[in-house]
Amino acid sequence: MILGTIKGTVVSTRKCSNLVGFKLLLVEPCYGNKKDIIVAADSIGAGIGELVLVTTDNTTQHALDKPAPIDAYVVGIVDFPPQEGK
Amino acid sequence: MILGTIKGTVVSTRKCSNLVGFKLLLVEPCYGNKKDIIVAADSIGAGIGELVLVTTDNTTQHALDKPAPIDAYVVGIVDFPPQEGK
Amino acid sequence: MILGTIKGTVVSTRKCSNLVGFKLLLVEPCYGNKKDIIVAADSIGAGIGELVLVTTDNTTQHALDKPAPIDAYVVGIVDFPPQEGK
Amino acid sequence: MILGTIKGTVVSTRKCSNLVGFKLLLVEPCYGNKKDIIVAADSIGAGIGELVLVTTDNTTQHALDKPAPIDAYVVGIVDFPPQEGK
Amino acid sequence: MILGTIKGTVVSTRKCSNLVGFKLLLVEPCYGNKKDIIVAADSIGAGIGELVLVTTDNTTQHALDKPAPIDAYVVGIVDFPPQEGK
Repeated sequence: MILGTIKGTVVSTRKCSNLVGFKLLLVEPCYGNKKDIIVAADSIGAGIGELVLVTTDNTTQHALDKPAPIDAYVVGIVDFPPQEGK
Repeated sequence: MILGTIKGTVVSTRKCSNLVGFKLLLVEPCYGNKKDIIVAADSIGAGIGELVLVTTDNTTQHALDKPAPIDAYVVGIVDFPPQEGK
Repeated sequence: MILGTIKGTVVSTRKCSNLVGFKLLLVEPCYGNKKDIIVAADSIGAGIGELVLVTTDNTTQHALDKPAPIDAYVVGIVDFPPQEGK
Repeated sequence: MILGTIKGTVVSTRKCSNLVGFKLLLVEPCYGNKKDIIVAADSIGAGIGELVLVTTDNTTQHALDKPAPIDAYVVGIVDFPPQEGK
Repeated sequence: MILGTIKGTVVSTRKCSNLVGFKLLLVEPCYGNKKDIIVAADSIGAGIGELVLVTTDNTTQHALDKPAPIDAYVVGIVDFPPQEGK
């Protein structure tokens, strides 16, 4: 999974019917290139500035009630920034 | 998902039968390396210059009426460029 | 999908039984890093120098008659190089 | 699979119900860019500093008892650092 | 698929039960960044120094007798290094 920080939201009125109801969030990765921001769907209720765990690819489907065209999904809110060696 | 801008179209006459009927679009990613343009299928009707949301991988199938060999699919047209912190 | 140019062929005598019968092609991507050449299977009949559309990942299966361990597959031959803005 | 070293743990109280019970580990890849740390789930019992093998994507599901939104999973603890040519 | 050269083997005693019996190989990609070595499972019998074809992701499952958490699998041994334009 990717560890990232929520940086903003994406608003889309014309979209696939099975994307309706999901919040779409800009997530900046904590590791690697910080510029590789992705858009992740969320239903946990994560807010801007929070540190989250995002699963990618078709594994997102295992967190959804029904299939949806979502390749990045917020699956957890991280309690505190992880520290190396702990 | 990837946030990107539609830059052009791709025309292919000889193609898999289950690709017929899809518009094929060049999508330039907004984040990361802008040179990593991909080709995404579309049936929403997105036009050149529009900002779109693209899902990748096998999650595309959940937006299609029947299976197709499409690894990038336009699932939404974004209303306005997202701003960090909002 | 990836837009790429066919640069050569790969010959493999000892291979998985369900790869028999597929042509294996070197495909150089048109966008991003041109050195990231991949090997794609083909049954459309694309030739060296042709511009093709390659789908990746498990979405390849939707273009095959029966499942095969192929993560990149030529799904279309492009009529002419796409131009930005058209 | 990715060969990596466990660098720390990630604590998440608010998470998907089917992530409960998995340890979440920071894994630093041995090859490529060491900064591309990922978060992998574990149930083998790997500890900090250990060298592990991580499978990614939906292939993680084949190591799980039931489906879970996990795109990186520790599938083995490596006995000793591999040496080229051996 | 990835074209790569086998550089070594990985030994793992504590691993998922459905990884038992597979040889685990270090594969250096021929194209792109040579430092992005991956670990691929093999049952064809490829040896160190051989040039192989590796399929990735969940497409590996189509080469296996039963499902396994393997995201890179040697599906062919290449007869000779491919040459551009041939």
